[in-house]
Amino acid sequence: MKNRRIVLAARPTGAAGTEHFRLETVETPPLAEGQVLVRHHWLSLDPYMRMRMNEGKSYAQPQKLGEAMIGGTAGVVLESRHASYAPGDTVVGSGGWQEASVVDAGASGVLRKVDVSRVPLAAYLGAVGMPGVTAWVGLVKLIEPKAGETVLVDAASGAVGGTVGQLAKARGCRAVGIAGGPDKCAYVVNELGFDACIDHRAHRDFASLAAALDAAAPAGIDGLFENVGGLILDVALSRMNAFGRIALCGMIAGYDGGPMPISEPRLLLTQRLRLQGFIVSDHLKEWPAALAELGAGVADGRLKYRETVAEGLENAPAAFIGLLAGRNFGKQLVKLV
Amino acid sequence: MKNRRIVLAARPTGAAGTEHFRLETVETPPLAEGQVLVRHHWLSLDPYMRMRMNEGKSYAQPQKLGEAMIGGTAGVVLESRHASYAPGDTVVGSGGWQEASVVDAGASGVLRKVDVSRVPLAAYLGAVGMPGVTAWVGLVKLIEPKAGETVLVDAASGAVGGTVGQLAKARGCRAVGIAGGPDKCAYVVNELGFDACIDHRAHRDFASLAAALDAAAPAGIDGLFENVGGLILDVALSRMNAFGRIALCGMIAGYDGGPMPISEPRLLLTQRLRLQGFIVSDHLKEWPAALAELGAGVADGRLKYRETVAEGLENAPAAFIGLLAGRNFGKQLVKLV
Repeated sequence: MKNRRIVLAARPTGAAGTEHFRLETVETPPLAEGQVLVRHHWLSLDPYMRMRMNEGKSYAQPQKLGEAMIGGTAGVVLESRHASYAPGDTVVGSGGWQEASVVDAGASGVLRKVDVSRVPLAAYLGAVGMPGVTAWVGLVKLIEPKAGETVLVDAASGAVGGTVGQLAKARGCRAVGIAGGPDKCAYVVNELGFDACIDHRAHRDFASLAAALDAAAPAGIDGLFENVGGLILDVALSRMNAFGRIALCGMIAGYDGGPMPISEPRLLLTQRLRLQGFIVSDHLKEWPAALAELGAGVADGRLKYRETVAEGLENAPAAFIGLLAGRNFGKQLVKLV
Repeated sequence: MKNRRIVLAARPTGAAGTEHFRLETVETPPLAEGQVLVRHHWLSLDPYMRMRMNEGKSYAQPQKLGEAMIGGTAGVVLESRHASYAPGDTVVGSGGWQEASVVDAGASGVLRKVDVSRVPLAAYLGAVGMPGVTAWVGLVKLIEPKAGETVLVDAASGAVGGTVGQLAKARGCRAVGIAGGPDKCAYVVNELGFDACIDHRAHRDFASLAAALDAAAPAGIDGLFENVGGLILDVALSRMNAFGRIALCGMIAGYDGGPMPISEPRLLLTQRLRLQGFIVSDHLKEWPAALAELGAGVADGRLKYRETVAEGLENAPAAFIGLLAGRNFGKQLVKLV
């Protein structure tokens, strides 16, 4: 079948833009034994993709030029030459920025059938997918929150951050978010149930952000789930309690290559902090427990999330650039069908 | 009895100097029930004391002005009103920068009798004392080295660093040191048995130090025991392997208050590093196991160390300032008797 896809056309030297992508049309190859053809209904856009666009040392191979951008997808099986899959099955995988993909369905981690009777298909790309498990692993396994502690998370209205705060609340913690703009902050507190949320756009220097954090987290911070880096991380570090834990999940503030030092690393020593950089794919053994809690939470309505949906593959690049600038609100998806 | 002591006279605003200390003579108070009078034979000088001279947020109360500087001491009991101690007992404690101290011998952690039949008294302030246990906890419990891995430690000829490398070698690791000057580096390799040692004075910029590290640790770094911070930490971070562990023990490069950022914290994320700031007094339950290994090592000559000895209490401030500048060679002590 005809398959439209978006490939990486050039690597950004500074900020990423739509000019770094190119739309192409190709034919899907015929199925070999063991393969499945999936029509993608939803494409997930996530901040980690920005880091893959760069060359150099990272936790993964750089995205190759001229190939379809990597990315999580949710869709429906159209044709199958694998015994475990039949046309009509709803599946999630890593099909990339394209309308369809042909995959070796038996390979580990490539494709997973999902039950859409109580959880919407798109949620398997968000709260019940990679972002949700990222939140769960970082909070539950790395921060190890105890009831009564304060957990701070930035990008708090996003797919990861919003889940972090709700899981922290469920564990008896004070959940404090940082997000961009009054609408996102209101959502984080009123809809997601965080105890407080700081609008970083209203606090653009250290002293102002620190004062806001002191008001929102008067007992200091015990657990920090870090998605952003830069000034926010510097301020958060200065408010960490002794023996605090930091799950370092992302540093979106620095993905364009600007310097983003930690200004006062001695705080890591004096407060005896533990910091763990992580990527969720290193923690495969945690996925079943995480997905069980996340799936149950979405199914019964306790675990809330919000989506921003772009329509059509051709709009994926602009939606992705918007995500990097914080113009999305909640999980950024592209609806393909 | 007459007791000479050195008090903190003023807090440094930049570099610490001998002018920040003052020598005084006072009388020791009469013993109350449960107290012991100890004549200090040895005073330990350690980098952490510099941080205590500053005001502000640290892992401990600042050193009080006008009071004897804190510090580990080894000595002999002169008088005792505590059933567990008798005149002539050899003891270690935290008597401070003074010739004698009166202590509540029953309080937890204040005083400990030590056996000097196979381990010299002064070694209980070094390899078989706080610095040795610091090395042990950071390496064994935080870095958790596996045979075949590479462990890097800076200030490698010092009381802590020298022990880290020897303990790492005993666990089948490649031990790489960083020290200041060719004499210290020769000692670290030839006497302590490290596989390699880099003279940071010969490599004063990032590119030069990084090239030296690549030669000394061709397989990258799995465990980093960090005593210094600054440029050395930046270079070491850039050479860490995925899933590396960092024991953050000291940042002596920044104790005078200059900025000492971590330039590329995104490496903590992309390499999924674990960093743990620590102070050995938070790990009291590890002391018995650590002291058992360290004491046995010193007693049978396997665990080597070197001492720099200043004579007389009045020379403690100059010796301490020399320690901060790296003019000592091995454990810095002051001999009082």
